[in-house]
Amino acid sequence: MSEAESYPVTNRNKVKRKPQRGSYDKQAVYDILDSAMICHIAYVIDGQPYCTPTSFWREGDDLIWHGSSASRMVRAQSGGVPVCLTVTHLDAVILARCGFNHSVNYRSVMAYGTAHIVDDLDEKHKLIDAFLDRFFPGRAATMRPATVQEVKATTFIRMKIDDASAKVRDLHIADDEEDYAWPAWTALYPVKQVIGPAEECPRQLPDVKMPEGMAGWTPGRKLDEVMLEMYREHYEK
Amino acid sequence: MSEAESYPVTNRNKVKRKPQRGSYDKQAVYDILDSAMICHIAYVIDGQPYCTPTSFWREGDDLIWHGSSASRMVRAQSGGVPVCLTVTHLDAVILARCGFNHSVNYRSVMAYGTAHIVDDLDEKHKLIDAFLDRFFPGRAATMRPATVQEVKATTFIRMKIDDASAKVRDLHIADDEEDYAWPAWTALYPVKQVIGPAEECPRQLPDVKMPEGMAGWTPGRKLDEVMLEMYREHYEK
Repeated sequence: MSEAESYPVTNRNKVKRKPQRGSYDKQAVYDILDSAMICHIAYVIDGQPYCTPTSFWREGDDLIWHGSSASRMVRAQSGGVPVCLTVTHLDAVILARCGFNHSVNYRSVMAYGTAHIVDDLDEKHKLIDAFLDRFFPGRAATMRPATVQEVKATTFIRMKIDDASAKVRDLHIADDEEDYAWPAWTALYPVKQVIGPAEECPRQLPDVKMPEGMAGWTPGRKLDEVMLEMYREHYEK
Repeated sequence: MSEAESYPVTNRNKVKRKPQRGSYDKQAVYDILDSAMICHIAYVIDGQPYCTPTSFWREGDDLIWHGSSASRMVRAQSGGVPVCLTVTHLDAVILARCGFNHSVNYRSVMAYGTAHIVDDLDEKHKLIDAFLDRFFPGRAATMRPATVQEVKATTFIRMKIDDASAKVRDLHIADDEEDYAWPAWTALYPVKQVIGPAEECPRQLPDVKMPEGMAGWTPGRKLDEVMLEMYREHYEK
């Protein structure tokens, strides 16, 4: 694998527990990130760690998210601040024949880099549109345009991924060979996050129709599949 | 509200952004935590933040989870290490008439405290059973018993919640009054995480039946509802 296709393995992104589940392949990392609407971000203020859930998206090797209560701290550090952005998709619960082999199936990414506030107003304006279109392709053009006030009040934080790793478990029950004779009931329960039917705004104007860009948001679909499809529709078409 | 019923508001758990969504009520915090199988934990090693997804559960005001690559670091600090444990349930996606009012409905908790490794073997043995029974009531008694080797190889980390806050958005579209005349299509998409039908182990013994304790794990149910029900079945009956 060439350097361009995978992240360097560093002391921080190296998968230490269950290393066979780890991957440093960029496409594997991107696919897990692009399938998510929500991430969790760890940062430090005065030695205290914080873990904040937020919506985010990817542009190339950059991750971008909304400001949080950490924004002031990020702004105060002109060199940026170190963060770890994590995405987790839960796929199944595994009930084995002993406590030790109980597990879950999942796809996760931990991405590391230095976070900076986006200050340029033109760039922020573009990011507001990208933030919409990444999830709802073509939506930005149908919006009441953002006011200067709103653009100023919106904080975006941007981080180039310096290194990252993906970790995946995608197995059925994996008991120790000698345990298969033990008479415990064992099973895998699939887990999925799905979207329901659109509940239109009660004050929807009578002549407004659902735009074509929302065709992929059909009831019952997995949110991670919709997210990945919308991402590709917006960025790769 | 008495002190016993709510967490103290400190500089770290105070909800700064959208404070109207915040709560320090212990029962509100517990209900969000007890509805979750997975949390994200932020900790710091040498100034670098890490955000790790893991399974966890609550016993009174203590949160307990499986060891991770941070275990060595936690063990090395005899006084324990500061962590932030976060749970997030995504409930809906909100498409408004301007970018600024797009949002998601969610229930989240950020809990702060000092994490310690559990070293006592008897306590670890009990925790292995509690870890199973919290999610699958009565399951521990049906398991092939844990070996001393397994108990030694299992790391548990325990943290008393010093302070915490819950944050909830549970609204439909909330546009600015003057924007309701703007002809954009707007809607709320419900999101839920559901379990599927049990896929039994292909090597299930022929005379083994699904135990009664799994009756609540019925296909199509929301995982958060099942989690809360199982919690109460195990700890409150």
